[in-house]
Amino acid sequence: MSSQRPRVRAHLAQLPGYAPVVPLAERARQAGLQPEDCLKLDANENPYGIHPGVRDALAQALDAPDFGSIYPDPNQTELREALSRYTGLDPSMILAGAGADELLDLSFRAILPPGGTIITCTPSFGMYPFLADINELNLIDIPRDNHFALRSHELLEAVEQAGRDTIVVLTSPNNPSGDLVPRDLLKRLLDLGATVILDEAYIEFAGLHASAQDLLADYPRLIIMRTFSKWAGIAGLRLGYALAHPGLVTDLIKIKQPYNVNQAAEIAGIAAINCADEIGKQIDAIRQTRDDLFKALLTIDGLTPLPSESNFILIAVDPNIGTGRNLHDRLAQVGVFTRTYSDPLLTNHLRISIPRADQLTTLLDRLNSAL
Amino acid sequence: MSSQRPRVRAHLAQLPGYAPVVPLAERARQAGLQPEDCLKLDANENPYGIHPGVRDALAQALDAPDFGSIYPDPNQTELREALSRYTGLDPSMILAGAGADELLDLSFRAILPPGGTIITCTPSFGMYPFLADINELNLIDIPRDNHFALRSHELLEAVEQAGRDTIVVLTSPNNPSGDLVPRDLLKRLLDLGATVILDEAYIEFAGLHASAQDLLADYPRLIIMRTFSKWAGIAGLRLGYALAHPGLVTDLIKIKQPYNVNQAAEIAGIAAINCADEIGKQIDAIRQTRDDLFKALLTIDGLTPLPSESNFILIAVDPNIGTGRNLHDRLAQVGVFTRTYSDPLLTNHLRISIPRADQLTTLLDRLNSAL
Repeated sequence: MSSQRPRVRAHLAQLPGYAPVVPLAERARQAGLQPEDCLKLDANENPYGIHPGVRDALAQALDAPDFGSIYPDPNQTELREALSRYTGLDPSMILAGAGADELLDLSFRAILPPGGTIITCTPSFGMYPFLADINELNLIDIPRDNHFALRSHELLEAVEQAGRDTIVVLTSPNNPSGDLVPRDLLKRLLDLGATVILDEAYIEFAGLHASAQDLLADYPRLIIMRTFSKWAGIAGLRLGYALAHPGLVTDLIKIKQPYNVNQAAEIAGIAAINCADEIGKQIDAIRQTRDDLFKALLTIDGLTPLPSESNFILIAVDPNIGTGRNLHDRLAQVGVFTRTYSDPLLTNHLRISIPRADQLTTLLDRLNSAL
Repeated sequence: MSSQRPRVRAHLAQLPGYAPVVPLAERARQAGLQPEDCLKLDANENPYGIHPGVRDALAQALDAPDFGSIYPDPNQTELREALSRYTGLDPSMILAGAGADELLDLSFRAILPPGGTIITCTPSFGMYPFLADINELNLIDIPRDNHFALRSHELLEAVEQAGRDTIVVLTSPNNPSGDLVPRDLLKRLLDLGATVILDEAYIEFAGLHASAQDLLADYPRLIIMRTFSKWAGIAGLRLGYALAHPGLVTDLIKIKQPYNVNQAAEIAGIAAINCADEIGKQIDAIRQTRDDLFKALLTIDGLTPLPSESNFILIAVDPNIGTGRNLHDRLAQVGVFTRTYSDPLLTNHLRISIPRADQLTTLLDRLNSAL
């Protein structure tokens, strides 16, 4: 007993915290610009914004007398049925969450005891080491090679040597390198009996045919994460989902926060699925702009873009121009907000989210002016 | 390594799961009625629904070009400033979450190691034992007496004997008994050096003057939980907040899910604070209806209402009428949905949320028909 404020647990007290995206208004203010004059290309959001069909569904829902005031459905019945239509999988294999972030945390927390292990292949999504820290897990990293390819041999070896309380976390397409996880590697990992979380947050930009979801039927230890934050343009409403063995879904439903998916996210998610064909046109435009940006970048001295299956491009910056951070800072001064990394492999890199087609010229002009 | 599906940890596998509220559509279907002909009085929601001012703010936000598509502000700057105006406390003492549920879980998880202890005084909110289970905590229960009063002596004794990894969780007003935690008891617990989470989810129905928030200045081990689900009519959007020592808030911000409060909740919360005076009229009406219902219940043979400082009334049901569950079931058949409990102390009780003033006659008619 004490008269001091409560302390958080030792393994949490020293954490640096997750480095989240700085809000646009704040970045614009720092640049001395209006937000509408800036290109926010730092968080892989959908540059076309929420689809009119989703907006209309929300506007219509707002008019219902009990909108907002009633607790959401803890079993997510309607939402999981919509997700079943979208994925072609049975609702019993689907669990929705407040972003895939929540479901990653829930999975780590539910499956792994403190002292368990997650195996990652950096550079990748910063949330994995953050959640490993929060959950008191060991992190075994099998870094990608200098071309950002997965080191299959080392990864398989690490899995063979790992204890049973281990989850392999892979990202397909990977953030920030943009490449898909090779299907044969994934199968070899699963054949070894590994529990694999495959984060397909960006899979719509590669095409749903590139998903590994068909492997769920044969591999009960595969868990796939998806999100509406990227393709469906509702990052602000927080909606993700997991695809997994029905038995695991049943267990996770029992231990999740009962009302984890808010009503606006539920409505927007169902609406996005109902107009997925329309949103598909936005996705097509983003892929086209990605290819146009890639080609344009190839012609700029000192910049080398990586091929990407996603809605961003990782760019290697020649040391003559400066570090990735240097270019990031110069771009920020002209109102182009990008993403850099502390990972040593990425010192000379910069990640740029794909803008709208009509913003590409502005982006290239500002990029040239910042070199 | 295994070919079976991943198992959740042993302490989670056997959990019964939290018993959430069954959605209205489902309950209406079971009763063979239309939802609009039913009285949903099972979840202490605001019967007047979302306030027009909050609805308008959401409708206006929907029109902004980047609505929904951008990640929320992880530091909740604007929301915490609004909460600062509402509470009179500095933003550094405020942390918002996806309902108080998330912040209860975060606090348990951050402060207590597995094997730590929470002390509760049942009957109370079912989320506390649920979260104790999830977080592998011991539960010491000091049940209330037959009149639902806290057993101060036993509670103080339990706190004196507790180890340092202990949190006392009290609810004021309590759900379901409706009474406030006596201020002198709270101070005595804090004087002993206990970490106390005081859940003030329903405090607006007692009046904010009944809050213990002024004790935060002297007692750094006090954590107060609040929600927008009850008074502000936005249970579906998920918004709660904690009031605590700035050092603890700083730590919790670092380890929370970065984007834990969704944009719709943020907008609705700020709007609710901006029209808190208007919503205050709904609260006044609910208090008036509570008093009217209380008086009416006093005249019904076999029903004994408990005085309540909240937006519900706990009713003792005479065994001649049946158990609380019996009456609950008969009420459900006539489209009145209430709440019962498995707690032995509550076998002969029923909790009814306060309806709108214009629904009171219908409620009393159906109640009489169900006796």
